[in-house]
Amino acid sequence: MKSSAMRDLMAVTVRPEVISLAGGLPDTSTFPPDTFAAVAQRIAAESCAKALQYGPTEGLPETRECIAEVMAAEGMRVDPEDMIVTTGGQQVIDLVTKTLIDPGDVVIAEGPTYPGAVPVFCAYQAEVVQIEMDAAGMRVDLLEETLERLDREGRRPKFIYTVPTFQNPAGVTMSLARRRRLVEVARERELLVLEDNPYGLLRYEGDALPPLYALDGGLYVMYLGTFSKILSPGIRMGWVVAPPPVLEKINLGKQGTDLCTSTLSQLMVQAYFERAPWRDYVDSLTEIYRDRRDAMLDALADHFPRQAEWTRPGGGLFIWATLPDFIDTTDLLARALRDNVAFVPGSAAFLDGRGHSSMRLNFSASDGESIREGIRRIGEVVTEQVNLYGTITGEHQAVTPPPSAEVVHIPTPAQRSRRAR
Amino acid sequence: MKSSAMRDLMAVTVRPEVISLAGGLPDTSTFPPDTFAAVAQRIAAESCAKALQYGPTEGLPETRECIAEVMAAEGMRVDPEDMIVTTGGQQVIDLVTKTLIDPGDVVIAEGPTYPGAVPVFCAYQAEVVQIEMDAAGMRVDLLEETLERLDREGRRPKFIYTVPTFQNPAGVTMSLARRRRLVEVARERELLVLEDNPYGLLRYEGDALPPLYALDGGLYVMYLGTFSKILSPGIRMGWVVAPPPVLEKINLGKQGTDLCTSTLSQLMVQAYFERAPWRDYVDSLTEIYRDRRDAMLDALADHFPRQAEWTRPGGGLFIWATLPDFIDTTDLLARALRDNVAFVPGSAAFLDGRGHSSMRLNFSASDGESIREGIRRIGEVVTEQVNLYGTITGEHQAVTPPPSAEVVHIPTPAQRSRRAR
Repeated sequence: MKSSAMRDLMAVTVRPEVISLAGGLPDTSTFPPDTFAAVAQRIAAESCAKALQYGPTEGLPETRECIAEVMAAEGMRVDPEDMIVTTGGQQVIDLVTKTLIDPGDVVIAEGPTYPGAVPVFCAYQAEVVQIEMDAAGMRVDLLEETLERLDREGRRPKFIYTVPTFQNPAGVTMSLARRRRLVEVARERELLVLEDNPYGLLRYEGDALPPLYALDGGLYVMYLGTFSKILSPGIRMGWVVAPPPVLEKINLGKQGTDLCTSTLSQLMVQAYFERAPWRDYVDSLTEIYRDRRDAMLDALADHFPRQAEWTRPGGGLFIWATLPDFIDTTDLLARALRDNVAFVPGSAAFLDGRGHSSMRLNFSASDGESIREGIRRIGEVVTEQVNLYGTITGEHQAVTPPPSAEVVHIPTPAQRSRRAR
Repeated sequence: MKSSAMRDLMAVTVRPEVISLAGGLPDTSTFPPDTFAAVAQRIAAESCAKALQYGPTEGLPETRECIAEVMAAEGMRVDPEDMIVTTGGQQVIDLVTKTLIDPGDVVIAEGPTYPGAVPVFCAYQAEVVQIEMDAAGMRVDLLEETLERLDREGRRPKFIYTVPTFQNPAGVTMSLARRRRLVEVARERELLVLEDNPYGLLRYEGDALPPLYALDGGLYVMYLGTFSKILSPGIRMGWVVAPPPVLEKINLGKQGTDLCTSTLSQLMVQAYFERAPWRDYVDSLTEIYRDRRDAMLDALADHFPRQAEWTRPGGGLFIWATLPDFIDTTDLLARALRDNVAFVPGSAAFLDGRGHSSMRLNFSASDGESIREGIRRIGEVVTEQVNLYGTITGEHQAVTPPPSAEVVHIPTPAQRSRRAR
């Protein structure tokens, strides 16, 4: 799926009558305006001139202390000197790719991967090799096979890009065993890993697994964090932790790109961390999003035909649904938009044309009622397509696809049992 | 001068005991904290959830209306649809270069050029051809000669980068005749021009000249604007106006880089434009900066040796001083930092090793007293070097360099007369 098609999609979804399950938006209406006012008031009183001024490229020291606190909440110890504050997490993907990739270089990513990373890898002319996933995240055994193959071809990937926890778009989480093995592989082969972790704190059940960064200690694992999902994407603030030689190059790249991250945003975060218990707000978000996830899972069971499968994420913002192979979700989207409902077609998460029968569904940006109605409408369109296919081929209602080995096909055991209801 | 050296310089200049004439910082302590508080209060009350949310990549429509108002104040009519709001003006340089340049492509720039553009051009492996300047800005006659030469070599520049008004770092302004000719040349040869205009509204005397964009009507001239010097660099907000096919590519580039510009910053600007007379604040800045420019010009006349020359800018933030050829300002800076005063060595404004005996001096970020003291200290170090050279060569105090044809040597008539006092 082309970026311009994604843009058209985004343009359509701002129409108020459209139920958009397409974006990756948190629900910022949950943030208390009083807290915003108090935080801004404090800046006006104490640090107005500073908030309006340029800051150091790497970010303000006090802001980096707040970031260290966020990382500590996920079990990571980090020296604020080893990080750079960035203009959102997206900028980290851009700067790391810009720093490490020359045209033709190999990047390893998950299949499916974060749709927003796809145009970045393309812009720097990386060759992206996507590794299949299942319910336990990236198949690290297949990663090793791929690395062997590349090795035989004399090619060495510049880095491995992964969202191990509540993956975007698949919603699955890499198991502890695979995390350990991935970190070992990185060390054995001296390969850099970029761990993208926007959703780790948005956990709706179970216990947290250690981030790759915690397992590796920052030797080969670079870490991407962001305030977008735990506070606000509108302030455009993320960060990167990386080994010093890489960090130095990222810093130079950032200077050329935007000189420094918004000082206003940095001071807003600082004042907020001083004033309010930020974890309480994250806890309130998890309550809200858990209900929405459940609403979506229930609606999928009610409205999607039995030939469809989907993941059951333990956190994050996304469910990944896979339809029978004869359905193209890009075509389906055009049909769904006529019914004022939107999703992201699966092909946006691949660079090689795969994912055409899958879709990414977001449950954080809409309330339960909209989610149920949105899924009902999509389900209707899908059922229509399934029936139409049956009429044409004569296989009316008989299409139950065999368990597919295709990468994008990643039902989880929990989801299977729910579907069996 | 390497970027890392620039960074070291910036690190040193945050030490409170250092008088930094190096940065390009506006004086944000002039902005009324009450206005900041009122603007933030309004956002808290009316649009908190929107301020904290993602926005469209091209920027909010209301923000683009504010930008159209700023451009109208400089005599430009623009359709908000033809612009993209960016993360500062720096991002425009990055995105335009990323969009238009393949490795080895030619960019035309002024010599000296904005030091912050140098690492960007290098990062995308552009071949930069710098055109000499004099008191009336870029020598458009030499530009035409260069274009002829490139034409004979079968090479076509991808764009011409210029800061026509109160140039950074030279402080000079392109004459109306040259502006007209530059726009003609662009049309005749179908060449894109990127007009970078951060300082146009900071005019301390005389009448405004029309921007290239106004003369050309946006056919070949792309326009870079920013709120950094008329409101705040800490909010990281600029914009680009470009022909639709280029704008479309810039939009895709921006999506990959940081998805969108801070919504918080955009709403701050909107609320500010609704509430306060923004031109009054700009007028107050020009009063303050005019005095500081005059303080610097007086101090230069008092403390720099007669072998030095410098420009007399009618606006903006910078004076460009050129010393005798035997002085290397990068070495001089190391000596000056021991006396706790900083400037930007001229070589940072060239890609070809020129500018070694020049320096950029900023007068917006320091008060009159600091400026006088800073220039006194630099003058002392320069005089020491001149005398030392005299002692070594026997040409004691006799070094008056002949009028030089070197590019970076751009005294203005006004400055000559001031020096003659």
